Amino acid sequence: MSVREIEGGVCAPKGFSAGSVYAGVRQAERDDFVLILSDREASVAAVLTRNIAKGWCVHHNSERIKSGKTWGVICNAGNANCLNGERGAKDDLALERAATSIARDIHGGAVTGVLTASTGVIGHPLPIERMLEALPHFAQVLGSEASHSERAARAIMTTDLVPKMCAVEVTSGNGTYRIGGMAKGSGMIAPNMATMLGFITCDAEADHTVIQPILRSVAARTFNCVSVDGDTSTNDTVLLLANGGSGTGIAGEEALFEDALELVCRSLAMQIARDGEGATKLITILLKNPPRGGEKIARTIAESPLVKTACFGNDPNWGRIVAAAGRSGVSFDPNALSVAIAGHEVYRDGQPAPFDEAEVSAAMKTKELVIELAFEGGEGPQYRFWTCDMTYDYVKINAEYTT
Amino acid sequence: MSVREIEGGVCAPKGFSAGSVYAGVRQAERDDFVLILSDREASVAAVLTRNIAKGWCVHHNSERIKSGKTWGVICNAGNANCLNGERGAKDDLALERAATSIARDIHGGAVTGVLTASTGVIGHPLPIERMLEALPHFAQVLGSEASHSERAARAIMTTDLVPKMCAVEVTSGNGTYRIGGMAKGSGMIAPNMATMLGFITCDAEADHTVIQPILRSVAARTFNCVSVDGDTSTNDTVLLLANGGSGTGIAGEEALFEDALELVCRSLAMQIARDGEGATKLITILLKNPPRGGEKIARTIAESPLVKTACFGNDPNWGRIVAAAGRSGVSFDPNALSVAIAGHEVYRDGQPAPFDEAEVSAAMKTKELVIELAFEGGEGPQYRFWTCDMTYDYVKINAEYTT
Repeated sequence: MSVREIEGGVCAPKGFSAGSVYAGVRQAERDDFVLILSDREASVAAVLTRNIAKGWCVHHNSERIKSGKTWGVICNAGNANCLNGERGAKDDLALERAATSIARDIHGGAVTGVLTASTGVIGHPLPIERMLEALPHFAQVLGSEASHSERAARAIMTTDLVPKMCAVEVTSGNGTYRIGGMAKGSGMIAPNMATMLGFITCDAEADHTVIQPILRSVAARTFNCVSVDGDTSTNDTVLLLANGGSGTGIAGEEALFEDALELVCRSLAMQIARDGEGATKLITILLKNPPRGGEKIARTIAESPLVKTACFGNDPNWGRIVAAAGRSGVSFDPNALSVAIAGHEVYRDGQPAPFDEAEVSAAMKTKELVIELAFEGGEGPQYRFWTCDMTYDYVKINAEYTT
Repeated sequence: MSVREIEGGVCAPKGFSAGSVYAGVRQAERDDFVLILSDREASVAAVLTRNIAKGWCVHHNSERIKSGKTWGVICNAGNANCLNGERGAKDDLALERAATSIARDIHGGAVTGVLTASTGVIGHPLPIERMLEALPHFAQVLGSEASHSERAARAIMTTDLVPKMCAVEVTSGNGTYRIGGMAKGSGMIAPNMATMLGFITCDAEADHTVIQPILRSVAARTFNCVSVDGDTSTNDTVLLLANGGSGTGIAGEEALFEDALELVCRSLAMQIARDGEGATKLITILLKNPPRGGEKIARTIAESPLVKTACFGNDPNWGRIVAAAGRSGVSFDPNALSVAIAGHEVYRDGQPAPFDEAEVSAAMKTKELVIELAFEGGEGPQYRFWTCDMTYDYVKINAEYTT
């Protein structure tokens, strides 16, 4: 039994194709409209935003997935189709219908429907005519090469700087199958979820009722452990489609499936944090032997502007880290807490540990910074949370968005 | 019965004096050590940080105030005397003893003790020898003029740009008395509380048991409705000293006292938000007819980096405001929500309201921006929360702090 990384993204599993076109949703003339399609009906699992203010795609998808089945997803970047009134609801349904019709042209009349996803600015109507005109072009551009995966991953980017992809091949007792994924993130990234879109494909055979709890559990340890700025978006969506194209099932091998899915989701989540708006470094908050509710400690540190700016400035300011932990609302003994920054112990059992500020600051000048908090000796389980530093560019990007 | 603003700060009420000296706690050679003293025993009320990681002054003050009485407070800026081990505990007690001794030299043997307060960098030992050497100089510099109030308010500043003071004279059925206050804030400012120090003096006669619940209630509507960056500090302290110097009591006039105290505390809280690190504007989040838990909605908006950067950029991005409200964890109907920015309605009953972006953006170019959320018609009680915008300078100040 093995899980190994392979090339490609959502097209790595058998039977999936992807394509992207420019539909004029965003002003910048680069692809902004993506179709991911399975050649047969797939089981679907979803984790959707918990924000009360939801995009129309989220409203409708929560109904659409009740059947446990879908054929693909049509996604646009540049406009969230959210908080824009009844017109937005109609537009989302029109996209679903038109994309389903295209899918029938390609894979036949058995196609029952697709899901939708939108990301971008809130409160504006979609340019629906242009989008409906662009849809037929997917018939020409869909394909299953690694290049198709990458173009699709690139087309859903908003302020992302790099496309985010990951794929693995799983060899189980039942046979071999693949899991592929792509994601976008960048700003408004926070647990539950963020302007985070994650599309994961899989050619194993697995029922909706099996993969739904697994996806929820994996998302809790991966996508929901990322925060760029604490802002949970209106449109966050993670979808998992399992189409059985490999002929291999996961029955009796669910734990291996979960591990492989976690590898893909963790990779995508870390790629999102690393590419946070304006970020210069990926920060991992590692809790060793955390108290009950430890995830709140990690999140509070990860979202503290004071911690994030100190990381940008390579300032080993452990006081801000301990102060953030202390205000998290989680009970722990600060006198049994130790903190290490970039591998250097700076605080031990509630006391400052002597360290060379220049040396630790130099060690913080890295693309991958680890902040480690050990509670009461640090024996016991570990918990990881990912974020990025807060920089001048974060302010620049977000002070100059719509206007 | 009237409450009118008067000149001065903590020395406005009778029987209070203040003074500041340079004790070398901070490197910059400006006063960093403050004594506020009453000429008689005063009733005391306090609201202290809820951060688990507490400064030694907070640890000890929570014991000291149990008597309900004090004579004053000795405060330093530049070092929080926090998370620095047993040495910090001893230093705090030494400061208390030495300041009490000075107070006895001035006001006689009846002096029972003073409180302590510290603000600044975490995890370093106080330069206690220099501070103990500086203490006797207070005998020369203490005074009760408005200039003494202002010098003291200036000396407790850390990254604050301006001193924060307020005083009122209250004419009640019982007679006339005064309330004066000073505060510092700037960074790590968030409810419950922040690196916020607030010292309020009053020459009314009032018992500890009467003023403690009033101060707690007023702080909940003022100091705890301010957030610069969501970071609750280790050392937050608001103290109210009532020495009876006016000979006027508040019995039967408690509501008037509470109103007057709220006026002082609200003024100080708004001064803190206006002077947030790097801020270019004071932002008031005004909720009309908020749902149960509405303060969480206001706080989530006020602490959203996306909202705060949009305000800096004069970007009428109401989508970020509604999205922040939606992720606050508070239940409300987004279709019955309306939003106005700088007096311009941008979102009405769950739908975008047509508006001229350039016009609203121009209106946002103000020192005092109001963001108004009206729930279900907006009839009913109002709730206010104060914050500031997030700017390049916020990042600059906090990326270059200790190192």
